[in-house]
Amino acid sequence: MKKTLSLVAVLSFLCVAAFAQVKEDFVPSPNNQPGKQYPMVNSERCVRVQVSAPDAKRVQLDISAVKYDLVKNEDGLWTGESAPQDEGFHYYQIWVDGAAVPDPGSLYYYGASRWGSGIDVPAADQDFYALKNVPHGQMREMYYYSKSGEGMRHCFVYTPAEYDLNPTKRYPVLYLQHGGGENEYGWPQQGRTALIMDNLIAEGKAVPFIIVMENGSWTMPRNAAPQGQRPQAGQRPPQGQRPQGGGRMGLPSNWADAFKNVLINETIPMIDASFRTIADAEHRAMAGLSMGGMQTKAIAFPNPDVFGSIGIFSGGQISVEEAAAVPGFKEKNKLIFMSYGSREIESRQFPGNTPAQDTEALCKAGYNAHMYVSPLTAHEWQSWRRALYQFAQLLFK
Amino acid sequence: MKKTLSLVAVLSFLCVAAFAQVKEDFVPSPNNQPGKQYPMVNSERCVRVQVSAPDAKRVQLDISAVKYDLVKNEDGLWTGESAPQDEGFHYYQIWVDGAAVPDPGSLYYYGASRWGSGIDVPAADQDFYALKNVPHGQMREMYYYSKSGEGMRHCFVYTPAEYDLNPTKRYPVLYLQHGGGENEYGWPQQGRTALIMDNLIAEGKAVPFIIVMENGSWTMPRNAAPQGQRPQAGQRPPQGQRPQGGGRMGLPSNWADAFKNVLINETIPMIDASFRTIADAEHRAMAGLSMGGMQTKAIAFPNPDVFGSIGIFSGGQISVEEAAAVPGFKEKNKLIFMSYGSREIESRQFPGNTPAQDTEALCKAGYNAHMYVSPLTAHEWQSWRRALYQFAQLLFK
Repeated sequence: MKKTLSLVAVLSFLCVAAFAQVKEDFVPSPNNQPGKQYPMVNSERCVRVQVSAPDAKRVQLDISAVKYDLVKNEDGLWTGESAPQDEGFHYYQIWVDGAAVPDPGSLYYYGASRWGSGIDVPAADQDFYALKNVPHGQMREMYYYSKSGEGMRHCFVYTPAEYDLNPTKRYPVLYLQHGGGENEYGWPQQGRTALIMDNLIAEGKAVPFIIVMENGSWTMPRNAAPQGQRPQAGQRPPQGQRPQGGGRMGLPSNWADAFKNVLINETIPMIDASFRTIADAEHRAMAGLSMGGMQTKAIAFPNPDVFGSIGIFSGGQISVEEAAAVPGFKEKNKLIFMSYGSREIESRQFPGNTPAQDTEALCKAGYNAHMYVSPLTAHEWQSWRRALYQFAQLLFK
Repeated sequence: MKKTLSLVAVLSFLCVAAFAQVKEDFVPSPNNQPGKQYPMVNSERCVRVQVSAPDAKRVQLDISAVKYDLVKNEDGLWTGESAPQDEGFHYYQIWVDGAAVPDPGSLYYYGASRWGSGIDVPAADQDFYALKNVPHGQMREMYYYSKSGEGMRHCFVYTPAEYDLNPTKRYPVLYLQHGGGENEYGWPQQGRTALIMDNLIAEGKAVPFIIVMENGSWTMPRNAAPQGQRPQAGQRPPQGQRPQGGGRMGLPSNWADAFKNVLINETIPMIDASFRTIADAEHRAMAGLSMGGMQTKAIAFPNPDVFGSIGIFSGGQISVEEAAAVPGFKEKNKLIFMSYGSREIESRQFPGNTPAQDTEALCKAGYNAHMYVSPLTAHEWQSWRRALYQFAQLLFK
């Protein structure tokens, strides 16, 4: 009985402590909408939101798959905070009486198959993706015609700061892909690709190269209709116009083939014609996160004559047996890079080798293989920002 | 009595007719989020939205300053439509039990001082801003250091399709500004600047030129802090870091001066150093909508040695007396362009001359002055898309 009471006392103390523990040093998130005070983050990486909803019965913050009830004050403002989050970027949403809506205070990002709220929780290493007074490259938005899709495609191209100052110099190219439920806006926006590269190049840690970011889910646009039906920010063609089975997550059998056809036969020739590239495999790489990593394995790995370097971020592994089975790969590949967030490694079952075992076996067999584990992050953008930061320092050297 | 009854009958008939009149030919809006069926628009330009909010008491569509009640079905889906809208782009929002939130189905745009929902209502002339299989220019996102603001600024630069194919050719430049409560994303996104220019150039109706789109509200960034506090999409520095009185709509006395200093002493030299421009007044223009038009009058009009052409869209007029009072303007100015939406002309009081009278007087006095009135549109983006379309055909010729 005494023991039971003690346990209750301890549990009660823990609950009270949990509430008391919310440290009141919240500041507006660095990437709120202009002038908006909420969402906020504190030094313990808790996210606090505030929404005006005077007539609502229940308002919740929904972040990292947990819903937190907000509390209403007399002015109809609902306020509340999450448990501590991992460092880096998280998608989230607000529930107002059963309606899942974006937070009117946050900026909006494409992920989880919708444009919605996202928040950047400060990280100890955030300096590598901070905006600094260094020479800045350009993030260029482009449209181009796709014969296979009989319509216009949309992509982003990062050119390093020196690109326009050296009108005869040619550059290597990295094709960099987003994950499932995301699109070509992922790396330019939440990925902070331009800032990561600008900082790396300014510090002499990476050679300048071009980065192409395409939409790996959208393999058959048919939208060049004269009715103003253009794909805007992240749009795909209407339901009826999409390829059968070409859904974002389903990965049907022809899925990799369709994007492979676009990438190799349309995107690469367009990029090589439009930019001063070094148009050979040695100076062409492909990488991607999650689904984009699977696409990299499906498209770039079997084609060492097209892509000389490969990066797979939280998207699978390449074993030494698989590498040996691809004709010419051993001779032609320059770099194999694999990465995960440490929380992925902890929580995932690896039926065969672990990524570390695969990497070690590849190195022993003479491949230039590298592995990176992002500390204390999961299947999220902070893992992939860090992966790009590491990968870019190894690439084209 | 009979007369009264008739009137009631007629009124009843009109009400029923008003409901019956909603034509059931709604289709998903061309710029919804990928795969989203709502919002929809019908052939009468009514906007229909649908939001899931099973526990809400009241849900409304709020568009063009009118709120429309939605109706709930047994699945908790709220549906309803607006009265017919003008052709073109409109900001809107959804109210859920007193919370004003973005529609989870629409894409998001910056205007009315927030990132929120927008919808494009089909227009008879929408072909001029449609995505077509023509050579496409690039919309380039750039950061650069501002000495006056001691921080990084953010702008967009449109380069025509031929820019990278003619590595020695130099181009004229238009500095094109957004309105109050908007930012540098306005012209690239809801303004459809790149598509309008690509189509005009492909048809030989405009000469190729560069367009620079800056943030005219944000005159003093102090955000190059090493804490990852960068301005993302449309962000301004935190409240405490903003210049006193530098608000977006207030237009204090130093307001035009601050942006004039940025534009003339920082943006133009950066652009002339970064792009192959023709760096003289004859080949440099400024234009803007609403507040951006007022900035054009305040900055470009008194400086004919810097800007040779001027466009004011829904943002004021230049009288022949004002023109005569600016030293050197008569000799140096190449083009004065003024425009309004027809609904603005109808609803506005012009204390002095009408825009048409000012234009006529300028022409009689020997200026190259033009006026354009956008049919059946108000102080909205369709007026300004059309203004750019007209203005661009006159510019640098």
